[in-house]
Amino acid sequence: MSEQQHEGQAGYRAWLAYHPRVDSATSKEDSLRYGWIASGDRDDTVRAAISELAEGIGAMYSELPEIHVFPTDAAGENGARDPEPDTAIGVGTGILVGTFAANERLRDIFGVEVAELGREGFAIRTREGATAIGAHTPVGALYGAFHLLRLLATGADPSGLEVIERPANKLRMMNQWDNIDGSIERGYAGPSIFYKNDAIDFDPARIRDYARLLASTGINAISINNVNAHRLESRFVTEDYLPRIAELADIFRVYGIRLLLSINFAAPIEVGGLPTADPLDADVKRWWRDRAADIYAAIPDFGGFLVKADSENRPGPFTYGRGHAEGANMLAEALEEHGGLVVWRCFVYNCKQDWRDRKTDRARAAYDHFLPLDGAFHDNVVLQIKNGPMDFQVREPVSPLLGAMERTNQVVEFQITQEYTGQQRHLCYLVPQWKAVLDFETYAKGNASPVKRVVDGSVHDRALGGFAAVSNIGADANWTGHPLAQANLYGYGRLAWNPELSAEAIAEEWALQTFGASRQVTDAVVGMLMDSLDIYESYTAPLGVGWMVNPNHHYGPNVDGYEYDKWGTYHFADRDGVGVDRTVLTGTGYAGQYMGPNAGMYESLAECPDELLLFFHHVPYGHRLKSGRTVIQHIYDTHFDGARRTEELTRRWASLEGLVAADVYDAALARFHEQAEHAKEWRDRINTYFYRKSGVPDEQKRAIY
Amino acid sequence: MSEQQHEGQAGYRAWLAYHPRVDSATSKEDSLRYGWIASGDRDDTVRAAISELAEGIGAMYSELPEIHVFPTDAAGENGARDPEPDTAIGVGTGILVGTFAANERLRDIFGVEVAELGREGFAIRTREGATAIGAHTPVGALYGAFHLLRLLATGADPSGLEVIERPANKLRMMNQWDNIDGSIERGYAGPSIFYKNDAIDFDPARIRDYARLLASTGINAISINNVNAHRLESRFVTEDYLPRIAELADIFRVYGIRLLLSINFAAPIEVGGLPTADPLDADVKRWWRDRAADIYAAIPDFGGFLVKADSENRPGPFTYGRGHAEGANMLAEALEEHGGLVVWRCFVYNCKQDWRDRKTDRARAAYDHFLPLDGAFHDNVVLQIKNGPMDFQVREPVSPLLGAMERTNQVVEFQITQEYTGQQRHLCYLVPQWKAVLDFETYAKGNASPVKRVVDGSVHDRALGGFAAVSNIGADANWTGHPLAQANLYGYGRLAWNPELSAEAIAEEWALQTFGASRQVTDAVVGMLMDSLDIYESYTAPLGVGWMVNPNHHYGPNVDGYEYDKWGTYHFADRDGVGVDRTVLTGTGYAGQYMGPNAGMYESLAECPDELLLFFHHVPYGHRLKSGRTVIQHIYDTHFDGARRTEELTRRWASLEGLVAADVYDAALARFHEQAEHAKEWRDRINTYFYRKSGVPDEQKRAIY
Repeated sequence: MSEQQHEGQAGYRAWLAYHPRVDSATSKEDSLRYGWIASGDRDDTVRAAISELAEGIGAMYSELPEIHVFPTDAAGENGARDPEPDTAIGVGTGILVGTFAANERLRDIFGVEVAELGREGFAIRTREGATAIGAHTPVGALYGAFHLLRLLATGADPSGLEVIERPANKLRMMNQWDNIDGSIERGYAGPSIFYKNDAIDFDPARIRDYARLLASTGINAISINNVNAHRLESRFVTEDYLPRIAELADIFRVYGIRLLLSINFAAPIEVGGLPTADPLDADVKRWWRDRAADIYAAIPDFGGFLVKADSENRPGPFTYGRGHAEGANMLAEALEEHGGLVVWRCFVYNCKQDWRDRKTDRARAAYDHFLPLDGAFHDNVVLQIKNGPMDFQVREPVSPLLGAMERTNQVVEFQITQEYTGQQRHLCYLVPQWKAVLDFETYAKGNASPVKRVVDGSVHDRALGGFAAVSNIGADANWTGHPLAQANLYGYGRLAWNPELSAEAIAEEWALQTFGASRQVTDAVVGMLMDSLDIYESYTAPLGVGWMVNPNHHYGPNVDGYEYDKWGTYHFADRDGVGVDRTVLTGTGYAGQYMGPNAGMYESLAECPDELLLFFHHVPYGHRLKSGRTVIQHIYDTHFDGARRTEELTRRWASLEGLVAADVYDAALARFHEQAEHAKEWRDRINTYFYRKSGVPDEQKRAIY
Repeated sequence: MSEQQHEGQAGYRAWLAYHPRVDSATSKEDSLRYGWIASGDRDDTVRAAISELAEGIGAMYSELPEIHVFPTDAAGENGARDPEPDTAIGVGTGILVGTFAANERLRDIFGVEVAELGREGFAIRTREGATAIGAHTPVGALYGAFHLLRLLATGADPSGLEVIERPANKLRMMNQWDNIDGSIERGYAGPSIFYKNDAIDFDPARIRDYARLLASTGINAISINNVNAHRLESRFVTEDYLPRIAELADIFRVYGIRLLLSINFAAPIEVGGLPTADPLDADVKRWWRDRAADIYAAIPDFGGFLVKADSENRPGPFTYGRGHAEGANMLAEALEEHGGLVVWRCFVYNCKQDWRDRKTDRARAAYDHFLPLDGAFHDNVVLQIKNGPMDFQVREPVSPLLGAMERTNQVVEFQITQEYTGQQRHLCYLVPQWKAVLDFETYAKGNASPVKRVVDGSVHDRALGGFAAVSNIGADANWTGHPLAQANLYGYGRLAWNPELSAEAIAEEWALQTFGASRQVTDAVVGMLMDSLDIYESYTAPLGVGWMVNPNHHYGPNVDGYEYDKWGTYHFADRDGVGVDRTVLTGTGYAGQYMGPNAGMYESLAECPDELLLFFHHVPYGHRLKSGRTVIQHIYDTHFDGARRTEELTRRWASLEGLVAADVYDAALARFHEQAEHAKEWRDRINTYFYRKSGVPDEQKRAIY
């Protein structure tokens, strides 16, 4: 493991820190329960589970369990047999972990109810002193091991466990936006851990630790390069790079994670030397089939292609007069026989809009492009739809495309990396935002069609679906720059596994595992995490209007930063009012893309929720919100309030000095100081901008410039 | 010469194109007058003059003159003698060029009146068939040669010439902002011709051609690296780089141009390994003296150091509690014995200003910093003062520091490179702007103290003074990207030599030399050049308020681009009005920095010239200008007008198709198209911004968004 190179960096171990169970009165007893770990499985994944259990139990109880790997039902593949298990397995208490097929005792313990676990589920049961973790597959056993460790680390009583878990979503994917030059598009935690200086260049131990972190939360797929696949990355699908990529796949495979590649739709031209990349061209089809064959020869369980096409100047089928379905299906045909997927992003819009043109509405774009294609995609194609119609703003409505396509596989795309949400210099725990998206009622099929049921496939009875998200990690010792930003990485995986978990429960799980069992630390950290999204929202762009950031890097306030630009992201503030009219009656018609009562709710100035008011309506500054405040006074109040609460965050964190590891404490403290300063800048610029425009004085006469 | 590598690129030859004199009825006669070129001088500079005359005469008359170099008064230094001049020198007509000392016939022809020519002046006289160019020095003769060629190229009657010229200014300097990585700060015509890939790397022929262009306009000094001297450039003063720099100096020396270096004030630490760069520290003084000795050993006529200190995060004496005078004088002492200068820039201001702070005024900074130091600088120190108090905006008042220091050498700094004036993608002939600065009455000593008399040293009887300017050339085949931007390079040199020349006369000179004698081309080009500054001003930031550009790269409109930033450049537009109150009575007091009636003129809302109104006053949008229009209507009108006139520029240029070389025509046409599009963007953004803020409709109901 590469912890050595980050010695003394508590942040590196993240939520797999395995703090001693000091607070538990029963720890001595527990310890007795885990004198050994035994399994009849010999594959790498169960071995990883055993190794993780050994490390975790050893660290939490300061006593290493004995490990027994033996064939229970049959000889090992090579016919060799381990020496008969010593008597330890009958003596004292321990953990039995593995697949039902390879472990007769697990079958005995769990009986018949195991069928419902599926390919990735697991069951945990305490029986006759032993804790049994059983699954149909090695990866199920691994998930069970991580689950047991989580239970122990979060202070659960380990006696009488009775757990059955299976993931809600089939696809639980991480998207790396890493470039081969070592940079990361929208990366805020140092350079890539995969690439350096135009080469695939990684420390296997660090990749393995990343895989451990991901697997511990249930992630089962990873695309390892930026969706904007540049010159060299476009060659990843060739023999030039496949041997090294296969090494990465080997590491991730142990942890149940399939590897995908982001591809360049124009690769047949740029890499293959063909005159076209037309998806209907026979040579193009053959070229991709050949690539698929090469890839699967190197990586038999290769996950598939992630594709950003005809989006933000990326090539795509439009060049050849073809549509998204024709583009995606051509790739899908190449991958089909190998069991690969095409994950096709729906982030398609006109990024050369004329700001003078108020009819074109970027928010409409994904729906307008893709809805007519419902049913046209092959079964191994999944559409990846950003959670909102714009681009990962702190507040957006839910994308109306989610649920609208009945005969098309869908995954929802979140952004863990805090592009518009403080770039890991500000605290912004995003799980509450994602929860709100997942719980959003789409009315796709009556009124029990929340987004989480759309993407898990149940609403439209789709076999494929799930989550994708842009990673927030880099080569920083603590992975995420801001130590508390680890909670977003953790929370994403947990939600993808089980969207019913509450944001607070996830925060508490994360805090306990990361910092240990101190109630003071847990309460403070959970409180700060839970407040953070609201705080961030309060001092940035108001009432759902979004943007107001600096172009390109997207950090820091700039109210008109995108107002006269080509990106289709405007607020239309003038001396009288602000907001974008997206109603059907007088605006762009976007509100009409929603199903059922949602369309009317957003259309109506009276019904539209305050927090999205300026996303849907252009209103005068004197417009009264449901809160009773005017829009302008709301802007002033929330911005003063947000800056003040940000200062409090610093104090709340400072109260933990000495209670969390020094490196983590210091790194976060520096960021809280920056956030406090920066929140004041946001406050003053936004308030000054709107004061200068509206001329309306603050009721409380606070300083506006 | 490296024209070869730019073969077919008419733009490369610029104003030394030497077009055939087809329009002159007397060309055959003229030709007879230049059957030979003779000189008694043998040094490289006179040889360069002869070579230029031969090339120019040969090209203009399609007949190469014979060349005779012979000692008239004495044997050559090595005692060898050329064969006696053949009879040609007495037969037919020709050009006699050189120094009085080396040419008895020149002494005969010019007699006693030559004394007034000074070190760089020359006289031209047609006498007995021969055209005589005489000077006290080789470089005087070179200037005379270029002058004769200019007269011929601009259609002057070569018979009966009687010219006496000497430069108005002692220092006529070009500043390259080139970096060793090959980039140019604020360069818009390709990479550097001096550097490549972190090395001094040049084509000597191209450097020589640049020297020819500069010398032809009278430039006599060049600093070859960016005033922001980075890591490697800081080592230019060491043996690491001096041999290569000496090669550059050798090339420029032939053309009468002394080489200077921009230095890093912290070099004693960063290069020398000293613990300090304190100008009063003995080791620091010694270190610089040693560097000076090394430099002069390599470059005996080295010009000196150009210094940007304590400016925009550059190191300087402030770090050590010292002032500018102590910093500059320390360097001056190191250079003094060698005859070197310290050129110390006055572009010093707080570049980390809080935008909320309305008391601090960047415009005041140069004056506030330097005025108290009058008389404190050594005689070989020259202060380099930007023409305006801000930073090369299209419209600024003249810097109040110019003329205010009676006992201090001053040069005025212009910016030829079009940083804020269209980046050589827009046409913007800057000579009229510079003329306005030079003619500005400072009242430094009564009412005959225009800036041009301040910097030539006459107002305060200073021995040293002159012009400096930031070059606009790069490795583009035509030097300046926009072919017509050559006129700025040309015009700067001509003005530095003779500030009495009119902008129009310079434009005509340039057009005739560059494009040949077509009246249609000359009239069109001169007309376009003369209109261009006003056009550019009309569609960009209004009424002297400045900025409104994109941060960092400074191209394109962004009304609030600097409004909430740290650079001290604000317009304070709100729903009621716009402008910066810089009056003494209610504002920052900047207006009070002016001398005589200027202070009152700028202080008074009634007297302040319209074009600078918003620089000095914050006024309501309904304020009536002297023109009778309101401020807001003026903004609308000028912006519609400017965009319209920009479109006309395209048509005016298109009328010259076939009349100017195709490469020049095409390059400029593409730029005029871009300018026309971009002017519309400026128009619409500025108008929309102010309409949204003011709510005042355009009287003519034109489209505002």
